[in-house]
Amino acid sequence: MPELRKDPIVGRWVIISTDRAKRPTDFVREQVKLKGGFCPFCYGNESKTPPEILAYRPAANGTATPQKDTPGWTVRVVPNKFPALGIEGSLNRQAEGMFDKMNGIGAHEVIIETPDHMQNLANMPPKRIEDVLWAFRDRILDLKQDKRFKYILLFKNHGEAAGASLEHAHSQLIALPILPRRVAEELEGAKQYFIYKERCVFCDMIRQELDSGVRVVAENESFVTLAPYAPRFPFETWILPKRHEAAFEHASSQMFRDLSYALKTLLWKAEKVLDNPAYNLVIHTSPVQDPDLEHYHWHIEFMPKLTKTAGFEWGTGFYINPTPPEEAARFLREANVEEPVLTGV
Amino acid sequence: MPELRKDPIVGRWVIISTDRAKRPTDFVREQVKLKGGFCPFCYGNESKTPPEILAYRPAANGTATPQKDTPGWTVRVVPNKFPALGIEGSLNRQAEGMFDKMNGIGAHEVIIETPDHMQNLANMPPKRIEDVLWAFRDRILDLKQDKRFKYILLFKNHGEAAGASLEHAHSQLIALPILPRRVAEELEGAKQYFIYKERCVFCDMIRQELDSGVRVVAENESFVTLAPYAPRFPFETWILPKRHEAAFEHASSQMFRDLSYALKTLLWKAEKVLDNPAYNLVIHTSPVQDPDLEHYHWHIEFMPKLTKTAGFEWGTGFYINPTPPEEAARFLREANVEEPVLTGV
Repeated sequence: MPELRKDPIVGRWVIISTDRAKRPTDFVREQVKLKGGFCPFCYGNESKTPPEILAYRPAANGTATPQKDTPGWTVRVVPNKFPALGIEGSLNRQAEGMFDKMNGIGAHEVIIETPDHMQNLANMPPKRIEDVLWAFRDRILDLKQDKRFKYILLFKNHGEAAGASLEHAHSQLIALPILPRRVAEELEGAKQYFIYKERCVFCDMIRQELDSGVRVVAENESFVTLAPYAPRFPFETWILPKRHEAAFEHASSQMFRDLSYALKTLLWKAEKVLDNPAYNLVIHTSPVQDPDLEHYHWHIEFMPKLTKTAGFEWGTGFYINPTPPEEAARFLREANVEEPVLTGV
Repeated sequence: MPELRKDPIVGRWVIISTDRAKRPTDFVREQVKLKGGFCPFCYGNESKTPPEILAYRPAANGTATPQKDTPGWTVRVVPNKFPALGIEGSLNRQAEGMFDKMNGIGAHEVIIETPDHMQNLANMPPKRIEDVLWAFRDRILDLKQDKRFKYILLFKNHGEAAGASLEHAHSQLIALPILPRRVAEELEGAKQYFIYKERCVFCDMIRQELDSGVRVVAENESFVTLAPYAPRFPFETWILPKRHEAAFEHASSQMFRDLSYALKTLLWKAEKVLDNPAYNLVIHTSPVQDPDLEHYHWHIEFMPKLTKTAGFEWGTGFYINPTPPEEAARFLREANVEEPVLTGV
């Protein structure tokens, strides 16, 4: 008998198939493979992107101040060459008859995660992943000074099937004058739970999941990686800070270090179990002007692209998940990757 | 400058790219092509499906009563061989610690739209499409007697890229003990509008769209086909009854006749403009036990599968639409298909 399960945050019911559960090898999918060719994100091609907004350049001893838009960087942030939103102007909210619109004001940036075309978050040294996380934080702290922005969306499309148009490892940032719908739903759901229970729903979830263990994929000092109870997609996995924290940009340096290991471990396991799948990673965090919510808890959602049934789910908000999260978590948990050693815990 | 537009029903903001609008030929997509091979839905293979629930068999003069599960039908409804939900049992709602679950009770049926493998809703005679609509209605009226069911979802996946596993023209029905999330959002948004305005938001929208005409694709006596003001996807198109009606199954026979023409016209135009794209069709209608809502208005949503950027949108509820609906509507409106003649208006 299949099960209907309810997501405790937004209240969405999903069908979890229990009878004919799909195993990792049951999914027909395209493996992400590098094709090569000219790449504007590679080391040496800095002039092929718009001028950089931020770059980390580990200074060599005795050298002069590094020049912008030249090699020597480890992480580099540039404006998206084809931005979805424009940075200049005012919102100019207005009606169009019964409809509502405003100017498409916002920022759209690309975080180039490595100068090396062959690297990605699964095979980079944790220290380099940490740099990427610091770059996310630096950009959030800069952009949140602009009071037009209500939300900053950080996400990663890996592989063509997940929507990536360039294969060189990169993430994207979109600063928005509005709250995206799903974020608003999460905030509202978490708030209702808090009003009723006087506890954070994510904190409750983490406690229960760590107690039972069946949906836990990995764990370190600061983070737990788990399959949620009512996932929409097979092998959907979340990484959550164990301690209550509403905003990503408030994480401590210890947390960024631990997160780099947690991320690498998850992506490594997914690569092994799901044969290098296309995936999306999204950081769910508080609205930038409201970073101290007692009812919200930032986290990362990882969604490998294993199924094709897209439009129906879009059209209805109704999901059929062929892999129970307990199964998905077991496969990922048991995947025999060489665990990166946590230092400095 | 791109525009941010708000959907007037659910309040979702989307980005509409206006600068570099994508035209139909700009989308890289797979054309839906028939591959052939053995097909359990074809005429003569009736024994290869589970026993039929319903079939329309135009009786020939002087012949005996037609036998079930034999040829001679025009539309045939069978249980899904691999149902997502089970029909027997009770819901047995219960907790699992902080989580909520129930048994996966429901119905999952397949509506085989034609006995002919070469036919589909775009090239079938309108009378045959009408039969399909009557079959939808008959199944709703039968299933709504089962008080366990709160919602009946009718949808169609056309083409592999849209999630279809069999290429023979068919739709699906899922009867659910819960309201799917997106339906609940639409009902709630429409209710809020009604409380504020004392008018149906869909009726207001239809009036404004017919006045301006810029987003209208086609129109007949009973239905208007239009691109919504804030569509999530390029070429997303809705078909709405012009007169207020909350439930699909309450439509008159005149309306089913007019809907068959409206559907055929839209699918025909889409086939021509978008080169036979994969698509999803979803009927949005009232909860079955509550079919007389003054604030809700049933309609059909058509979503061609033109872009691949799925997971990000799923993860955030945030959409970037590269084709303004005015452009999409113009392409579809101007597509030179031979308009089926409306009779009996």
